[in-house]
Amino acid sequence: MFVDLSVLLNEETPVYPGDPQTHITPAGLLHKDGYKDHYVCIGTHVGTHMDAPSHMLENGKNLNDFPLERFSGRGVLIEVNESFNIEEVKSAAVQKGDVVLFNTELSARYQEDVYFTDYPAMSEEIAQFLIEKEVGIVGVDTCSVDNIDGFPIHKLLLQNEVLIIENLTNLKILRGKNFRVHAFPVKLAIDGAPVRAVAELI
Amino acid sequence: MFVDLSVLLNEETPVYPGDPQTHITPAGLLHKDGYKDHYVCIGTHVGTHMDAPSHMLENGKNLNDFPLERFSGRGVLIEVNESFNIEEVKSAAVQKGDVVLFNTELSARYQEDVYFTDYPAMSEEIAQFLIEKEVGIVGVDTCSVDNIDGFPIHKLLLQNEVLIIENLTNLKILRGKNFRVHAFPVKLAIDGAPVRAVAELI
Repeated sequence: MFVDLSVLLNEETPVYPGDPQTHITPAGLLHKDGYKDHYVCIGTHVGTHMDAPSHMLENGKNLNDFPLERFSGRGVLIEVNESFNIEEVKSAAVQKGDVVLFNTELSARYQEDVYFTDYPAMSEEIAQFLIEKEVGIVGVDTCSVDNIDGFPIHKLLLQNEVLIIENLTNLKILRGKNFRVHAFPVKLAIDGAPVRAVAELI
Repeated sequence: MFVDLSVLLNEETPVYPGDPQTHITPAGLLHKDGYKDHYVCIGTHVGTHMDAPSHMLENGKNLNDFPLERFSGRGVLIEVNESFNIEEVKSAAVQKGDVVLFNTELSARYQEDVYFTDYPAMSEEIAQFLIEKEVGIVGVDTCSVDNIDGFPIHKLLLQNEVLIIENLTNLKILRGKNFRVHAFPVKLAIDGAPVRAVAELI
């Protein structure tokens, strides 16, 4: 059984302040062309997406530089109550290659301005702990792993080639479950891409 | 271990005749904005992508109308030598929910014009056989499951909610292997989407 951790991507999907708007326009019409298709214009960081090191780092790797093994792994859910807590993270027994998902429940407020202005983020101490454990991916149900200027958490994780997924949803469904996460991004040779992140219950 | 069945998606990725060109332009610059991102404009049927019934059928389902279970399944590889052969298909013992991949080896000629003008396609008899077996997905390493006017194979498969993946690659690596295919498309509420199709060897 699978759980969908990805938001729907359409013109109403909120974009991070300053990022380009999504436009989805018809390119083929059934009655005229015999088929229907569309032209989809999106920023690489809209909706549920993955960040590659080149998003923040000069000469950082692009998404297509990573082997597929890096996009699938044991899932670990960590609850965030008001703020990220290092003790919660330590007690989660994360292992090398894990996909660590932080559940703030803010995905319920995705359509509100507050989603982009008032959200918790992990400390550098937590990021450093996850790096030392050699986790593969960190995922959040917020707009960013950073909520202060300068993107220190992005840089710390990406310098150590921990991949990042933002704007996840449905994380609460994973409570008490054992699961793998599959998050194979669209094969783009740039800084990020939409990803259909899913959890496979085991 | 995983095998990547998806082509790289960039401005050089060939597009089906008449489909819109891909444009990938910078939207954020590291030295100016503090991060790098891009604006990606693509047709829904460029590169390795999945077709939903609405691609060809009035009132057909969109991709987001299918449960995630439909995007993952046991993989079956069928060799195509010059032409699709019903006996090869019958001997492959396909089952309900399978992801049936046809290896023509034409992915090696993806950058040549001939890729879009001279390629084999399955007969209606083969499509009907796969429908009766209730396979979940049919995948090809060619530009289309149809090579004659009117898209009869698309329509037959999609009317029966068999999903289609086109422009696959690396299929020959799967010879003699047991594998699952994961092909979770970007969550778009339209006729098709890029998909990072992968095989997981088991």
